[in-house]
Amino acid sequence: MIGGGQLSRMTHQASVALGAGFRVLAQSANDSAAQVVADTWLGEHDSRDAVVSAAHEVSVVTFDHEHVPLTILRELEESGVAVRPASSALTFAQDKAEMRERLAVIDVPQPRWAIVESSTDVEEFVEKWPVVLKVSRGGYDGRGVWVCHSLHEVEAVMAHELKPGVRWLIEECVPFTRELSAQVARSPHGQMVAYPVVETVQTNGMCAEVIAPAPGLEESRSAQAQRIAMTIADSLGVTGMLAVELFDTGAELFVNELAMRPHNSGHWSMDGAVTSQFENHLRAVLDLPLGSPAPLGAWTVMVNVIGGDYPDMYAAYKHCMARDPGLKIHMYGKEVRPGRKIGHVNVVSDDLDDALRRARHAAAYLTGTIEE
Amino acid sequence: MIGGGQLSRMTHQASVALGAGFRVLAQSANDSAAQVVADTWLGEHDSRDAVVSAAHEVSVVTFDHEHVPLTILRELEESGVAVRPASSALTFAQDKAEMRERLAVIDVPQPRWAIVESSTDVEEFVEKWPVVLKVSRGGYDGRGVWVCHSLHEVEAVMAHELKPGVRWLIEECVPFTRELSAQVARSPHGQMVAYPVVETVQTNGMCAEVIAPAPGLEESRSAQAQRIAMTIADSLGVTGMLAVELFDTGAELFVNELAMRPHNSGHWSMDGAVTSQFENHLRAVLDLPLGSPAPLGAWTVMVNVIGGDYPDMYAAYKHCMARDPGLKIHMYGKEVRPGRKIGHVNVVSDDLDDALRRARHAAAYLTGTIEE
Repeated sequence: MIGGGQLSRMTHQASVALGAGFRVLAQSANDSAAQVVADTWLGEHDSRDAVVSAAHEVSVVTFDHEHVPLTILRELEESGVAVRPASSALTFAQDKAEMRERLAVIDVPQPRWAIVESSTDVEEFVEKWPVVLKVSRGGYDGRGVWVCHSLHEVEAVMAHELKPGVRWLIEECVPFTRELSAQVARSPHGQMVAYPVVETVQTNGMCAEVIAPAPGLEESRSAQAQRIAMTIADSLGVTGMLAVELFDTGAELFVNELAMRPHNSGHWSMDGAVTSQFENHLRAVLDLPLGSPAPLGAWTVMVNVIGGDYPDMYAAYKHCMARDPGLKIHMYGKEVRPGRKIGHVNVVSDDLDDALRRARHAAAYLTGTIEE
Repeated sequence: MIGGGQLSRMTHQASVALGAGFRVLAQSANDSAAQVVADTWLGEHDSRDAVVSAAHEVSVVTFDHEHVPLTILRELEESGVAVRPASSALTFAQDKAEMRERLAVIDVPQPRWAIVESSTDVEEFVEKWPVVLKVSRGGYDGRGVWVCHSLHEVEAVMAHELKPGVRWLIEECVPFTRELSAQVARSPHGQMVAYPVVETVQTNGMCAEVIAPAPGLEESRSAQAQRIAMTIADSLGVTGMLAVELFDTGAELFVNELAMRPHNSGHWSMDGAVTSQFENHLRAVLDLPLGSPAPLGAWTVMVNVIGGDYPDMYAAYKHCMARDPGLKIHMYGKEVRPGRKIGHVNVVSDDLDDALRRARHAAAYLTGTIEE
């Protein structure tokens, strides 16, 4: 797995049970995954030599992020290495403009969008303010995305110089009432499993909370979201996990973004589903039969633990464990920095309010925003 | 953790979620845990220098087996290292004669027993054949235990020379109808949690199958078993997981053996309980508040995967996954050798027969004893 972040760390946990050898290419020995994985190689994900060396003699190469240059992946593929998801699929996760173009072809519902090069283009596009301006490549966790309320704001953003190959993308602001995520795993055989559709709550463009399954989602709407995710996985030839982030307006669904890897919106599955997204990602990329995505309880709530002002979390960690023996805490081994994702907590319960209250309390206490 | 076997491997998985640094002292880089743990040290568990070096600057030392010499552990303790369980407790897990002597003092029900030195001593002890003859130290998985049907058989066994410090122990053959295991976790603070009491099925002296909870066990009997385990943990000052293996005659319970570590009879908890025995072992030895041992489903069945005649299990592994997407397979990364524990499967189900059928099928198919 290229990338030594927490997704790699948690995929490692799944690889242990499967008995699958697991190698990670991390930037530093202090990376979240590098701390725990025996077979850790150090190197940059955008260094051709580092990636090619680490990929030597492995059965399959996969990723914990979207940032490996396609040129490197194509070289691997040409030399006979199995890259999953393949560069031909990954390009749509790397480039939001390509993704929009492709989703239009396969007729998946998405916000009205356009490629723009100037504020004049934007003016022509806009029917109603605000609009969303994005860079086509390189953004994540809210970076590279701006909600603009006027042409003036658009011009300020577009004053940034774009890197080569990056385009400006503009999208209507869909009047959504909530955001959903539909996750599927797909193997090279084409076997697919769909996880329950979840509700995601974003804060500052970053996933903060996930409720599985999405409360009050009608079965037909849930099935539609799963169908959209399966259509995309199949049409784009995705292997491994695919997360499709969706806007729910109450009346319609629109595709917001894609991720072709385990995703923050699937962390609930570690404690709340028969097979976690990490295990199914591995099973998919290794072309093993997929595991059941069935939920283990009525509700699972996941809340991210965000770094706060206090670097020493030990007292808070003990307090949360003592207060709630049913809490599932997942720490990423990261140094605490304000605003940084450093872990998450899951609570499985028959009662949604109970799960929400307990998971939110623990995350807030660990972050340091509450003290009792 | 001293020892690089599968218990260490699975404890590592739990340490990843807790964000706890985890170092293992393994005999070889190919050991089950050494394959997956980043911070692996190589050395013998009975080498003073290897153990002392590996224990340098860690918060706590614990074990995946009972075979570290107490002299080494006492030296660690004297130098200020936290050893959990402490040598003062571990001695009762290392020496079955000491254990029997101690359990007699704390008045826990156990089979009639005696230390014997000659066949004459045995003759005086025996009221009824067969009897069980054991070496006090060094046995495991059925080794060092003989069921003898005559004085002649006893003499043949006792012709073996004993190592220094090892004694012969004789016990009546309790007419049990089944075997149970009661597991508790105990922290240095003295906090304890008790897991549901399980039924264990042994084959050739080795744990083969576990049903959680033990079917048809009356609540009062289950509470008695948990009380026995808590009494032992408390009286002996055990920290970490304690497994108490019990004979159930239908009318009474008798303590068979103890293990002061995660135990085969608790592997079901990885998929069947809120907190696995591996996580609670770590939480206990790190003096963290303990996690809930509550079951996640009505029934969990664990069946060991034993090495068979075919070293290449890959086809069988894929077949089992394809046949049953709800199966939880745990492989230990061990080379297949006939009779060797190489993994286990868990099935959680509302229906006991369903869980038994599926888990047994998968284990038998992986072992190679059935082909459909």
